Amino acid sequence: MAQQIDLNPRPVAASFVEMDEIVQPSDLNIYGSIFGGYLMSLMDKAGGISAFKHCGVNVVTVSVDRLVFKNPAPAGTVLSVKASVNRAFHTSMEVGVLVTGLKPGERQETTLCSAYITYVAIGADGRPVPVPPSLPETPEQRRRYAEAELRRSARLALDERLAAQQ
Amino acid sequence: MAQQIDLNPRPVAASFVEMDEIVQPSDLNIYGSIFGGYLMSLMDKAGGISAFKHCGVNVVTVSVDRLVFKNPAPAGTVLSVKASVNRAFHTSMEVGVLVTGLKPGERQETTLCSAYITYVAIGADGRPVPVPPSLPETPEQRRRYAEAELRRSARLALDERLAAQQ
Amino acid sequence: MAQQIDLNPRPVAASFVEMDEIVQPSDLNIYGSIFGGYLMSLMDKAGGISAFKHCGVNVVTVSVDRLVFKNPAPAGTVLSVKASVNRAFHTSMEVGVLVTGLKPGERQETTLCSAYITYVAIGADGRPVPVPPSLPETPEQRRRYAEAELRRSARLALDERLAAQQ
Amino acid sequence: MAQQIDLNPRPVAASFVEMDEIVQPSDLNIYGSIFGGYLMSLMDKAGGISAFKHCGVNVVTVSVDRLVFKNPAPAGTVLSVKASVNRAFHTSMEVGVLVTGLKPGERQETTLCSAYITYVAIGADGRPVPVPPSLPETPEQRRRYAEAELRRSARLALDERLAAQQ
Amino acid sequence: MAQQIDLNPRPVAASFVEMDEIVQPSDLNIYGSIFGGYLMSLMDKAGGISAFKHCGVNVVTVSVDRLVFKNPAPAGTVLSVKASVNRAFHTSMEVGVLVTGLKPGERQETTLCSAYITYVAIGADGRPVPVPPSLPETPEQRRRYAEAELRRSARLALDERLAAQQ
Amino acid sequence: MAQQIDLNPRPVAASFVEMDEIVQPSDLNIYGSIFGGYLMSLMDKAGGISAFKHCGVNVVTVSVDRLVFKNPAPAGTVLSVKASVNRAFHTSMEVGVLVTGLKPGERQETTLCSAYITYVAIGADGRPVPVPPSLPETPEQRRRYAEAELRRSARLALDERLAAQQ
Repeated sequence: MAQQIDLNPRPVAASFVEMDEIVQPSDLNIYGSIFGGYLMSLMDKAGGISAFKHCGVNVVTVSVDRLVFKNPAPAGTVLSVKASVNRAFHTSMEVGVLVTGLKPGERQETTLCSAYITYVAIGADGRPVPVPPSLPETPEQRRRYAEAELRRSARLALDERLAAQQ
Repeated sequence: MAQQIDLNPRPVAASFVEMDEIVQPSDLNIYGSIFGGYLMSLMDKAGGISAFKHCGVNVVTVSVDRLVFKNPAPAGTVLSVKASVNRAFHTSMEVGVLVTGLKPGERQETTLCSAYITYVAIGADGRPVPVPPSLPETPEQRRRYAEAELRRSARLALDERLAAQQ
Repeated sequence: MAQQIDLNPRPVAASFVEMDEIVQPSDLNIYGSIFGGYLMSLMDKAGGISAFKHCGVNVVTVSVDRLVFKNPAPAGTVLSVKASVNRAFHTSMEVGVLVTGLKPGERQETTLCSAYITYVAIGADGRPVPVPPSLPETPEQRRRYAEAELRRSARLALDERLAAQQ
Repeated sequence: MAQQIDLNPRPVAASFVEMDEIVQPSDLNIYGSIFGGYLMSLMDKAGGISAFKHCGVNVVTVSVDRLVFKNPAPAGTVLSVKASVNRAFHTSMEVGVLVTGLKPGERQETTLCSAYITYVAIGADGRPVPVPPSLPETPEQRRRYAEAELRRSARLALDERLAAQQ
Repeated sequence: MAQQIDLNPRPVAASFVEMDEIVQPSDLNIYGSIFGGYLMSLMDKAGGISAFKHCGVNVVTVSVDRLVFKNPAPAGTVLSVKASVNRAFHTSMEVGVLVTGLKPGERQETTLCSAYITYVAIGADGRPVPVPPSLPETPEQRRRYAEAELRRSARLALDERLAAQQ
Repeated sequence: MAQQIDLNPRPVAASFVEMDEIVQPSDLNIYGSIFGGYLMSLMDKAGGISAFKHCGVNVVTVSVDRLVFKNPAPAGTVLSVKASVNRAFHTSMEVGVLVTGLKPGERQETTLCSAYITYVAIGADGRPVPVPPSLPETPEQRRRYAEAELRRSARLALDERLAAQQ
């Protein structure tokens, strides 16, 4: 029996995901800061859960863009990985993922990393299926909704320029 | 004693890295294909070693762009992760990373994933240090060298447009 | 410089932690359900972050009580681990941890596991330090606050009976 | 073909399990001692093997009680995790698990952690099945056998008191 | 302060180590049997603890010989890794390691793997230090004691023949 | 449909595998050097991929010989694991595996570990199948080809002597 997708627009807030984590010594790189590959892995997990919450069916990661490491995080840092759907396209969703951290002995959170990850919804037959539109409700959500389209256009324009060079 | 960086241009080939891996059952996601976060982690490791080979000092990952998952890979796939420096800028290097896989029972490799990862060289005092220029020697390397600049300009242009919106 | 603990009562809500996770194939036991040891490890992490949020200093786990596994969870289940401080005692805090899961293809969350984990706050010299009282604000929080004392008394009473037998 | 359980009483000694381990740097928490979640995971494995040895069929963990961390253990500590069935009830078994450690440079073992873990035997159809009675043979085993019943009664009494409050 | 080694001969039994483990799905290779690299890692841990028990100081692995995989082991197999010192030489110890497994639904243990691993004792200054002689007490222990010398001679003879060829 | 093995001799170079890795803090043992069990696991993976490249069908590890640890490697060391088939016998292949490392701040690679690992090719029915002969083409490859036979004879001779003792 197929999973039935409800295609009514869904508010962005319904896709919100938060994962708290604490940086263990085994998560560190040789500089004593959280290993980038591990952080990416956490972000992909959080983003995938967010996309799943939006569409209600299985999703696969198709691309990661502008994943930017902004600050290091030592052992003992309490991480907060937040994700929500910026904008749904036909069968895909751009999810914004933000990682902040409270370092040991500090009282203010630091931004550690952010990224835009795109997921595609997959039906029971393994093929992409349409997802519900996303409904931004706050000014912040509307800004991200508009930016998602800009990022998408910029990617397509760049792909064209690169193709034209070959 | 500080690590002394040799700033003479270095050929791209000197930064070439190859990591072969075999997909184990514990590397799979719930669709029976290699988990994206694990693949990203491998790519970041290979890219970091490539940047290190280019500049000879410690490096940190600053961003990941256009990481695109192209095909799934079941358990038993023999992975080949290849990385080399596309272009060195002042203190940073864009590394191109490509993952191909030979699936069980097949005779042709499949492209699985690619990405552009940027690293910065870090001196003994923890601050960015200049890296040697990279010297493309083949037509393919020269194409990638030119594209790295296009990608960089496109990122800066997009950042400006997004900033103008706020 | 010592970490200064603010001993004013803190509302229970300030210690709330949520960790979302997705069950990967590598997290399974031989029955195809999430491995109990891995689940305990997640719960201890979430509980420790909650206790840390309450007191603002490092904490160590001292005991786990009534950790009860209620339902299994297959791969693909989206886990939600929630934790908050039930009651602070002198230098210790009882944290309630609850794990629910949304199994693939279901629309209702299932309770998977719950536990009461006790943490002690540790000062810069490695010794226990007093923590602020916890302030329950809702009927549910007040119920848990009262129960924490009952559980503590029952443990002490049982310890006495067991000691009397030896 | 179903797994046939032999329901003749079995001596406690037949369920004895010992796991030696050495604490690796990757097992440490941010205080430089073995991570509690990892230790719990070892204890659950040892306890599960003990219950399996007692009944000869698959078992699942149902609860963990009075898991108490008594001392920290640095890297290099040789751990000894010991488990045996304290008492079998109808379809369940209370297993006592004790972890001791020989720290680097010391000649005496230290008690690190102990717990009572309850397992249920599962038949081929996934339902609980009766297990053989356990036969305590030494004074120590008889004491633990008696205490298991006390702990069980105390849990049931506490559950009733907590239920009466709601 | 240096660790003082007691150089009186020690009985083989004093170095005996047993590690019980259960094969989890995440330990499997692509054939559904325990991954060889994981098994080697368990054997090296058990062997190292055994050598440490014999000499009482830190040890490092120097070589692995005749590690032979005899049978596969599916998930759910209860592993028993046993190790003891076959013979001590001047600063080194040959440890015999044997892995047997009780597969799900079977009543007889199967031999899975065996190996001879050589460790060297390391003093506080990081250099090899003499270890106590090992005292075989049973016919089996005496046979292994004699064989350890044969294996050592055969290795030296082979090394000479190989060197003569170059 | 069975995997068809091409039994024409294959040059040694076709089986060459290289895996680059960087030693992370979580890979260290208590002496601050790469954990031997982890290194063995990498070597077994590289060796298995090499044997697979030679014969084109699934392989299983049957034995590890003369695995010798020559030097330690701290965190940050860039490892290079190289493997190729020394000689194919009827259904088995001896693979030589060599691990070198570039330690942080050094300009010369150090030899860390070497081993001879034997794999058997497995057909679709789970039984050993014949593999193509290996064709050494350089003086170095011809030396290793000859030595593989010497090692094999020495193992058989030692097995006979040990059997005669029992």
